[in-house]
This record gives sequence, C-alpha cells and structure tokens, in this order.
Amino acid sequence: MSKGRFITLEGGEGGGKSTQVFRLAERLRRTGLSVVATREPGGAEGAEIIRKLLVAGDPGRWDPMTELLLHFAARRDHLRRTIWPALERGNWVVCDRFADSTMAYQGYGQGLGPAVVDSVYRLVVGDFKPDLTLILDLPAAEGLARADARGGDNRYERMDMAFHERLRQGFLEIARREPRRCAVIDASQPADSVTEAIAAAVRSRLSVAV
Amino acid sequence: MSKGRFITLEGGEGGGKSTQVFRLAERLRRTGLSVVATREPGGAEGAEIIRKLLVAGDPGRWDPMTELLLHFAARRDHLRRTIWPALERGNWVVCDRFADSTMAYQGYGQGLGPAVVDSVYRLVVGDFKPDLTLILDLPAAEGLARADARGGDNRYERMDMAFHERLRQGFLEIARREPRRCAVIDASQPADSVTEAIAAAVRSRLSVAV
Repeated sequence: MSKGRFITLEGGEGGGKSTQVFRLAERLRRTGLSVVATREPGGAEGAEIIRKLLVAGDPGRWDPMTELLLHFAARRDHLRRTIWPALERGNWVVCDRFADSTMAYQGYGQGLGPAVVDSVYRLVVGDFKPDLTLILDLPAAEGLARADARGGDNRYERMDMAFHERLRQGFLEIARREPRRCAVIDASQPADSVTEAIAAAVRSRLSVAV
Repeated sequence: MSKGRFITLEGGEGGGKSTQVFRLAERLRRTGLSVVATREPGGAEGAEIIRKLLVAGDPGRWDPMTELLLHFAARRDHLRRTIWPALERGNWVVCDRFADSTMAYQGYGQGLGPAVVDSVYRLVVGDFKPDLTLILDLPAAEGLARADARGGDNRYERMDMAFHERLRQGFLEIARREPRRCAVIDASQPADSVTEAIAAAVRSRLSVAV
C-alpha cells in the first residue's frame, strides 16, 4: 500500500506560504510523485463558500467560537472531498494552512485557548494529523508589512499588532508541543532561501529527494 | 432582576411550528410581555447567511458532521446577537427550532449519535437551555404531506421517509430524557387546537396567563 503524505505550511500573514506551497508541489512532482496543492479555508466546493464568510467583512463579524466552528466546518468538507481521497489514491497533498492556523488564530490569538480547539479537532478530524508541518516564522510587523505591500486586505490582516504577536507565539508553541511533526522555517530570509530550507526539511523528515 | 424566558418549538417538517410561534408570541404580548419571535437556523445577520448554506442545495451537499458545525456556528451567532441580549433586557424569546433540532436531525436522523451533539453543545452553548420546549409531534408521513402541500422544498424535506421516522423518534427521545423542560404536543390536531394545547403547557409550566 502506497498511501500519500500530507504536508502543511503554516504561519502568520505575509510569510510567503502560497508561493512556497506552489514551489514545494513542483519539486515533489519532479521526483515523480502525484501532488495535490490546496489551501484552507477552502480547497473543496462547500469549503470555498464557507471561506468567503471567513475572509470577508468586519474583523468583529464573528466571535472566536463561531469562527472556530466555521473553520472546522470548512475543514471537514475539505478533508472529505479533497484531502482524504487524494491520500487514499496515493497522492501527496501540500496544503496552505490547516488546523494549526485555527489553533494559532482562534486558540491563541483570539483567546479561546488550546483545550477548546483540541476538543473540536478530536471530534471533527479524529486522530488524523499532517505528516509534516512547516511553520514559516517571521516577526509579526515584517509579515504584516509584506502582506500590506502585496495589497492583502483580509479580516485577519486588519486585526491589531498584539493579535499578530500572539499568533506568532502560538505557532511557535505548537512547534514546541509537537517537534516531531513540526519544523520551524525562518521566513524572513529571501524566498529562494526559504524554498531551500523547506526542501531540506522535507528531505530529512520524509526521505524524499526534493 | 426580571430576566426573560426562552421558549423553543421543535419537531419534524409540516408540524406548523412557524404559525404556532407567531400565535404564541402574540398571546404572550397580550399579557404585557415584550416578546422576540425568532427562528433557527438564522435569527441574526451572520446566522441567516449560514442558513442559506444549510437549507439550499443537494441533500448530500454536506456530511452530517459538517452540517452539525454549520448549525452550531449559526446558533452561536444567533445566541450572541439576538437571544442572549433579548433575555438580558427582560424580553421573552420564542424560537422556531433550536438545538433539539440538531440533536434530532444530525444526532438521531443522520446518525452522529447524541454524545457528539452533546459535546459540541457544551462547548458552544455551555449550561444555557430553553426554559420550555414544545415538541410538535405528528406522524412523519403526515408532516411531509403537509410540507409538500404548502410547497416546501428544503434539503431536509427531500430526505427519505426512514430519515423522517428516525427524526420523530429522536424528538420523542429528547422529551423522555428531559421531561421537565419538554412538553410533547399532538400536532395532528387542527391548528387552533394545537394553539390551545401550547397555551395550556405555557400556562402550567411557566405560570403566565396566556
């Protein structure tokens, strides 16, 4: 049985995740693997509709609990329609954000706490976890300045700096809690260096020659 | 402190809930109370947007777990924006469907089971419960025929008869589990008789002269 592997890229705003997902997927394809590149919230028909409720509108549109439920509703649809079937087919899946973003944003950034997020995770996702999570880390102010420069304007980017600092510390805490699953990548480097650091982590953790 | 009371009307399709919510709210107003009549899924700006995802589209559009999360996301928004503020102001709230519908539809009808629904309830809603729940009970086939006659065509109405039978038994099970909160009303009677049976239950359980 050759089941696929599930790799997630995580981190705050402006860390270059979507570029790196694209590049990593390309490198994995060059080794002969079938790769699905996807993103959250979204990545399936229903999940993309829920995404619109989450990224648009006022920062205070939903309270943190409502937001947590919407993220997990979208995630469940994404898992059932896209991620799990791809892994079953033996594809590798590279995903721009996954449940660690919910832990960081709603659990740490918006103050719901890790226990609530863990409870919902177990109910909705069960024991399933990414095989490797790459956390693209950079100072919050630097990430927001980059997101600003590229013209980003989602609800989260408009939240205050203290929120984005809690977010960064949240991602680092996740990496400390699960060091075997997570690798922290310095995303303040030039994009090409980040690509190489990611490839090195994938090579050493998943034994694939990217 | 004169906090309001929270009354929910529950049951399968075609039981006349929305008519009875309207009539009960009117009767309560005639006793001098301030009454908010509302409904689920919906009842607040964000919740009404989520409602559209739930009532439209194919019956298999969402799996039961995704649906559970969307219902509780809408419910959380409804509680925070509409129900809790109204009760705090001392208003009475009469609601067309609430969490027992999620228990009956997703927990019993779609097979998630009561424990999962209870877990999410505790996380999202906490200890808060309706003061009185009126379960409008009638045979599934009769309810569906009525829903059909009024031209209803939501996702749930298009699910099969076995589902609707499980739904009815689910509501009756809820009433057996919480007899102090729930009153079962025979909804196969003419609408005016149902109105009187509801008024009698409200008088005896909540000591108000409707």
